[in-house]
Amino acid sequence: MSDATPSAYGDLLDRVRRISNVSHAEELLSWDQQVMMPDEGTPGRARQLSALSAVEHDLLTDDELGTLLDELDATDLDDEPAAVVREVRREHDRAVRVPTDLVERISAASSEALTAWREAKEADDFDAFAPHLEELIDLKRRYAAHVDPDRDPYEVLFEEYEPCLPLSHAEDVLTDLRDAVVPLVDDVRVSDADLTTDAFAGTFAAERQEALMRDALDLLGYPWERGRLDEAPHPFSTGTTFDARITTRYDETDPIGALLSTIHEFGHASYTLGLPDDAYGTPLGEARDLSIHESQSRLWENHVGRSTAFWELFLPRVGDAFPAVDDVTVREAYEAVNAVDPSNTIRVEADELTYHLHIVLRFEIERDLVRGDLDVAEVPAVWNDKMASYLGVRPETDAEGCLQDVHWSHGAFGYFPTYSLGSVIAAQLFDAVDADVEGVDDLIRAGEFDPLHEWLTDRIHRHGKRFETNDLVREATGEDVSADAFVDYATAKYGELYGL
Amino acid sequence: MSDATPSAYGDLLDRVRRISNVSHAEELLSWDQQVMMPDEGTPGRARQLSALSAVEHDLLTDDELGTLLDELDATDLDDEPAAVVREVRREHDRAVRVPTDLVERISAASSEALTAWREAKEADDFDAFAPHLEELIDLKRRYAAHVDPDRDPYEVLFEEYEPCLPLSHAEDVLTDLRDAVVPLVDDVRVSDADLTTDAFAGTFAAERQEALMRDALDLLGYPWERGRLDEAPHPFSTGTTFDARITTRYDETDPIGALLSTIHEFGHASYTLGLPDDAYGTPLGEARDLSIHESQSRLWENHVGRSTAFWELFLPRVGDAFPAVDDVTVREAYEAVNAVDPSNTIRVEADELTYHLHIVLRFEIERDLVRGDLDVAEVPAVWNDKMASYLGVRPETDAEGCLQDVHWSHGAFGYFPTYSLGSVIAAQLFDAVDADVEGVDDLIRAGEFDPLHEWLTDRIHRHGKRFETNDLVREATGEDVSADAFVDYATAKYGELYGL
Repeated sequence: MSDATPSAYGDLLDRVRRISNVSHAEELLSWDQQVMMPDEGTPGRARQLSALSAVEHDLLTDDELGTLLDELDATDLDDEPAAVVREVRREHDRAVRVPTDLVERISAASSEALTAWREAKEADDFDAFAPHLEELIDLKRRYAAHVDPDRDPYEVLFEEYEPCLPLSHAEDVLTDLRDAVVPLVDDVRVSDADLTTDAFAGTFAAERQEALMRDALDLLGYPWERGRLDEAPHPFSTGTTFDARITTRYDETDPIGALLSTIHEFGHASYTLGLPDDAYGTPLGEARDLSIHESQSRLWENHVGRSTAFWELFLPRVGDAFPAVDDVTVREAYEAVNAVDPSNTIRVEADELTYHLHIVLRFEIERDLVRGDLDVAEVPAVWNDKMASYLGVRPETDAEGCLQDVHWSHGAFGYFPTYSLGSVIAAQLFDAVDADVEGVDDLIRAGEFDPLHEWLTDRIHRHGKRFETNDLVREATGEDVSADAFVDYATAKYGELYGL
Repeated sequence: MSDATPSAYGDLLDRVRRISNVSHAEELLSWDQQVMMPDEGTPGRARQLSALSAVEHDLLTDDELGTLLDELDATDLDDEPAAVVREVRREHDRAVRVPTDLVERISAASSEALTAWREAKEADDFDAFAPHLEELIDLKRRYAAHVDPDRDPYEVLFEEYEPCLPLSHAEDVLTDLRDAVVPLVDDVRVSDADLTTDAFAGTFAAERQEALMRDALDLLGYPWERGRLDEAPHPFSTGTTFDARITTRYDETDPIGALLSTIHEFGHASYTLGLPDDAYGTPLGEARDLSIHESQSRLWENHVGRSTAFWELFLPRVGDAFPAVDDVTVREAYEAVNAVDPSNTIRVEADELTYHLHIVLRFEIERDLVRGDLDVAEVPAVWNDKMASYLGVRPETDAEGCLQDVHWSHGAFGYFPTYSLGSVIAAQLFDAVDADVEGVDDLIRAGEFDPLHEWLTDRIHRHGKRFETNDLVREATGEDVSADAFVDYATAKYGELYGL
């Protein structure tokens, strides 16, 4: 902070830190709910979370915060204070513009929609969910109109998850991705390559899987003095630079699922841990949104965890933990974790390549729904047609089709694209690491991950929200966000695997 | 709520619920800090707790809350709304009267005093702690003067922990207790009874102790769907009626320590669980302060957990868990858990009887310090003289004397008496249960604890803060808070054990 920074900036930081601390408290309560809380704790926890959320909203919409922002907007600030003001301004304006009763109506409608979605999925009955989806789209369109009545409502909603990468840019990336991946998947489908996919068949006790996960996290450099590993039904990572926790789940028939999921969450946690301690509680100490967060998890999951070098390092440990699979070769393991299955209809079970087509499909449908270019009633047919067109497979039921994901029942329209954006940014970052750090493959093979952590911390983590998304990627890689690196990587990788 | 209850009451409840939810969030963060948080999480957690505490203070001192209270004070309310208004009024007034900067100074001074106390205790150097103690006493006297300049400052501070039992009443109880227990301990000291105190000598693996604790909690009726058992360095219980958690600790040479501590915390948790679900977040759904809370833990620990009937029930399970002690008899176990040791100088290791003298000594010293009748420099000598007078033992060091407890370094003057008050109320309640419920001993022996839970819930738990402390005890037992029941119980129990 330069000498010229006005005292209003200190006042702003005090307010922002309080908001951030309340938000981190909410995250801890949510972690506890998913990991530790006894079954009947829900009524109390729901009310505690709702109270903290209301407190956070009141603090964020406080008139005095607005006054400080106005004063600072009129001041010539250094880069860092200017970035803080930009980030707080965006959050404040959005919160102020949307009426509280609309936020509450969306919350109530989501709650009902969640129950309806569960039942509709169970009964394979899209019509039972359709009215809830219609109501949520309507409410979220109204929400978008409050934020900015003059812009595309889907663009406004996308910015809830990815506030500073323009939708038009994201749309170009996703279209490039679709246009390159669809033919690549077609080639894989007709390839006569015979990959080993059952290298890790058998039964693997959860307790031993957990020990193996701890071993993997040790190896990757997870600092246990600032973290934990626990089980949760849906793996996630949460916390702060002082305490970034990982969760995973164990399927006794699939130890590799737990491993890749653990490495994925490790990537998220590493980002959080790499944020600067001294900027804790301010935008300069917070992660840059979902795409960049996902780029960290995907980089570790896909570019490290699915690499030959990693399996040269890690396979002996799997064999030690589970002697029944100690004869698996590195090549067999590599094929097992990288096999492409175009016939799979379920996003969360998709491989690294077809995953993007599941995302592009959802993106196109939700965008058209929010823009009013598609009716809810048409969703099942459009979904299945797109699946056939992109992946060559048609879901047999809506439960395995357009009802499979929870996101829309939360009213989360605009979230899906961040998964694919994260993955393409991961490929860009890994290319840049490869260019900057000598012998990355050898380092992975040797279990020497410090240079990779240092590069990622230096180029991404330590900046917090100082740069906007595309600027951050350009600072780190010299390139704008683009699908090119992923397409090149995937073309080479699957070309080798499938003899294309 | 009757039809006549004004709308201001609903507004008050909305505000009170928000405050309560923020407070419960703080408790959960604190539980996590003591039980789950990784070592380096402290900087973030401290700031989160401080932010929530500031939010809670702002909500509690809000002028609009004061306006609602004024309006409701001028209204003729039914008993329950009147009790809510009484409780919120007390909290609001105290919070409004004490300036925020004094609260912050006390918090900062406590933080420094805590470090100084740890070092002083380690070095057995009271002089190093003395200036911190002086400063805290000074600050807390100022605090008391803000709350009410016309009253005894110790009385005002006592009300932080026990807001609605008059200090004069508490003082009478503690004096009666001292006057009865000192001669009883004298008699025990000169008795030639030879109690078995080493029945549970040996090494007891922590893992098996934990299984035994879970077994004990099952037997006592702990509802796992609303609770958890975890380890913590200093056992405590926390939570809400929906989720009341217990912690304990394992000493591999002392399984009975863990058991009695677990049963003690179970008593606290049972109170929390017995609060009415539908009053959650309001004073009618919250526990009546520390003495009543301690009465619940002491009733289960002492009147159940140290009874012959309980050991008839539980000893076989101890023997199953630890075959090395499966030849211990019920009488030996009973003697081991009830032996009196007047030579012990450490409060937390004291038996049920001498414990009160440790408390009375602290009460008398802190009262005189706060009133200005005793100088800090005199504390070690007065402490040791009182130990000699009450217990017939003189600590060899201040580390084992006036430096042993953390409480004063937190600025907690007025807390200690609630331990003994809880214990005497426990004896009153257990007498009343005995009169109301047929064959309590037989029920304990049979592991049938439901009638005891039902009685305690009906007489104590379900009322929340509806009654003030003495009224609650009178409602439950027909008597005012008094040392008589404990004195009768102790005279009979130790008379039998020591042949007095």
